[in-house]
Amino acid sequence: MTRLDQIADAIQQQTGIYTNARSIERIARALLTETDFWHIIDQSDEVVPIVAATLEYFKEQGWIHQENDRLTLTPEGKKQILDHWKIVRLPDYACRTCDGRGIDIRRLPESAVQTFMQIHRERPAAIIDYDQGYITPECTLARVGFAHWKGDVDHREILVLGDDDLVSLALCLIGKPRRITVVEIDERLVQFIQKWAAAFDFPIEIRHFDLSRPLPDDYLHRFDTFLTDPPESIVAFRAFVGRGIAALKGPGCVGYFGFTRREATLKKWHHIQSYLVQQNVAITDVLHNYHAYVNWDYAPNTRAWQLAPVKKAPDIHWYRSSLYRIETLHGHLGEVDTEFDIRAFNDKEASTT
Amino acid sequence: MTRLDQIADAIQQQTGIYTNARSIERIARALLTETDFWHIIDQSDEVVPIVAATLEYFKEQGWIHQENDRLTLTPEGKKQILDHWKIVRLPDYACRTCDGRGIDIRRLPESAVQTFMQIHRERPAAIIDYDQGYITPECTLARVGFAHWKGDVDHREILVLGDDDLVSLALCLIGKPRRITVVEIDERLVQFIQKWAAAFDFPIEIRHFDLSRPLPDDYLHRFDTFLTDPPESIVAFRAFVGRGIAALKGPGCVGYFGFTRREATLKKWHHIQSYLVQQNVAITDVLHNYHAYVNWDYAPNTRAWQLAPVKKAPDIHWYRSSLYRIETLHGHLGEVDTEFDIRAFNDKEASTT
Repeated sequence: MTRLDQIADAIQQQTGIYTNARSIERIARALLTETDFWHIIDQSDEVVPIVAATLEYFKEQGWIHQENDRLTLTPEGKKQILDHWKIVRLPDYACRTCDGRGIDIRRLPESAVQTFMQIHRERPAAIIDYDQGYITPECTLARVGFAHWKGDVDHREILVLGDDDLVSLALCLIGKPRRITVVEIDERLVQFIQKWAAAFDFPIEIRHFDLSRPLPDDYLHRFDTFLTDPPESIVAFRAFVGRGIAALKGPGCVGYFGFTRREATLKKWHHIQSYLVQQNVAITDVLHNYHAYVNWDYAPNTRAWQLAPVKKAPDIHWYRSSLYRIETLHGHLGEVDTEFDIRAFNDKEASTT
Repeated sequence: MTRLDQIADAIQQQTGIYTNARSIERIARALLTETDFWHIIDQSDEVVPIVAATLEYFKEQGWIHQENDRLTLTPEGKKQILDHWKIVRLPDYACRTCDGRGIDIRRLPESAVQTFMQIHRERPAAIIDYDQGYITPECTLARVGFAHWKGDVDHREILVLGDDDLVSLALCLIGKPRRITVVEIDERLVQFIQKWAAAFDFPIEIRHFDLSRPLPDDYLHRFDTFLTDPPESIVAFRAFVGRGIAALKGPGCVGYFGFTRREATLKKWHHIQSYLVQQNVAITDVLHNYHAYVNWDYAPNTRAWQLAPVKKAPDIHWYRSSLYRIETLHGHLGEVDTEFDIRAFNDKEASTT
């Protein structure tokens, strides 16, 4: 009988990515209910290369077999999972009203929601050049609603670092920010947001900017709140979240960011938490799988696609990320003048680029 | 015009407790909608001594006035908050189905819920000797449901460090743990849990134990999951959560604990997060104000009561705590043989003892 930690060691050796028994368990459990690759990733909540390598391992052992895009447990596989490892199916207690987010977006002002949905329909598509990929409009509304509810929007000076999710427009539709500054690398988005901000006379200032470079000096210690969605490498995290922290005024200021498990192991989570502690910020909220991403057009060119044992487009939102809220204490730091190499914005755990 | 950070400095000097402008802002905002002391604490989400001192300061400035147990803003107070500080009321977007918890306890097995409610009605009252105070039965069910849903209950070896909330019984009613070990200092609870475990033939082993002492050697590296609710000092946190971590088997094991803002500033939150990072565990979830506490009988003997400007019993659940979930990585540590002085289980931020 093979132990879960032995498989984890083998997978870690093969992929070079941190793996422990719990990861293998989560993947095995997903196989009890799912047969589609993207569903298995979503259920297991693990990074794509580990899921792919584990499924390959299971196939070699004769525990799963593949037919017509489906990965099905064999009788030996079932025996292994249910009898040997004692892994069971889990109930689903997620609240259906709020999709487990704790806030009900039907309580947001209705006309603001409708306007945002309308704007969203016209938005530019995600492109691979900037590692884009945007969350559903419902998730943007939920995130912005959460920030509004926590007192981080009205009368605040807000910085948005990368605005693929149109957070700036949603913030102005839902709340009353004093001013929003957006830094964005994609000219298409700069123009799109500028157009709508002008149409509604929103206090949004948008600037074409590459976050591998330090923020302009006059952005430092100026904002009450920042929102961002970094690529999942440590370097990118420092470039996005670290610069966000440096842009906050003083104690009691707030940052929001999304961070996924699909491209980041818990070891990387631990690493960013250690980083946050060192910057003198406190984590106030971590809401699991708060955001679902719209499946992007460039999927077949990504590493996730190459790793997929089955070349079939996802039929669900398989890519999710958690919502973090942080609050500064006295002496908060952040990245003031660090330069980063944009090529390091990806690492081994990444798979959607 | 007095600035928020100036008031924060004055309050910090007076109370000796970390305070920043955001705390004063939260208290001022609460005054826009609340007139009862306990409601103001609940709304502001701040530690009791800071709320009490800030209200006293506001009173001296003529910003609030007290009449018949009510604290009401004066016209000057309103002007200060609305016009000078630009603090506004906030919307409430919390999901009403799940009370913002993200899981709907109506989806738990109905008969289990009913049985638990019945048991709960007969439970011993909280006593001040052990800094007790228990959460509502709905919150215990939500916490246990959350753990079950995350795969941390079925077939797991579980350690409960202090079981004032009857978590062990709820775990057995909702899920199928392999075995539960409870360490508890209060003989009344030991007997109460023992009686019900015997009646249902639950795999619960309960031991009378004082957590200021190290866990027995055979508890180390033995459990898959722990649950606990520490008193809010750093020392108590290490004694409860730190010993819980040391009791976990290896990587991929899980701990749950509650931690409040009512008796812990964000500086203390930062401190415990730094501690967790050092123990090689990752924080996977932080769910704000997940638990509401039943108002305990000994309230008039507590510091919170002495600090209250108004001697009126709370008519709401004013004391809430957040739910943390942590997961171990390789090389997790914890408190193996540390002895703690039980007198250090309280500190300046505490108010319910």
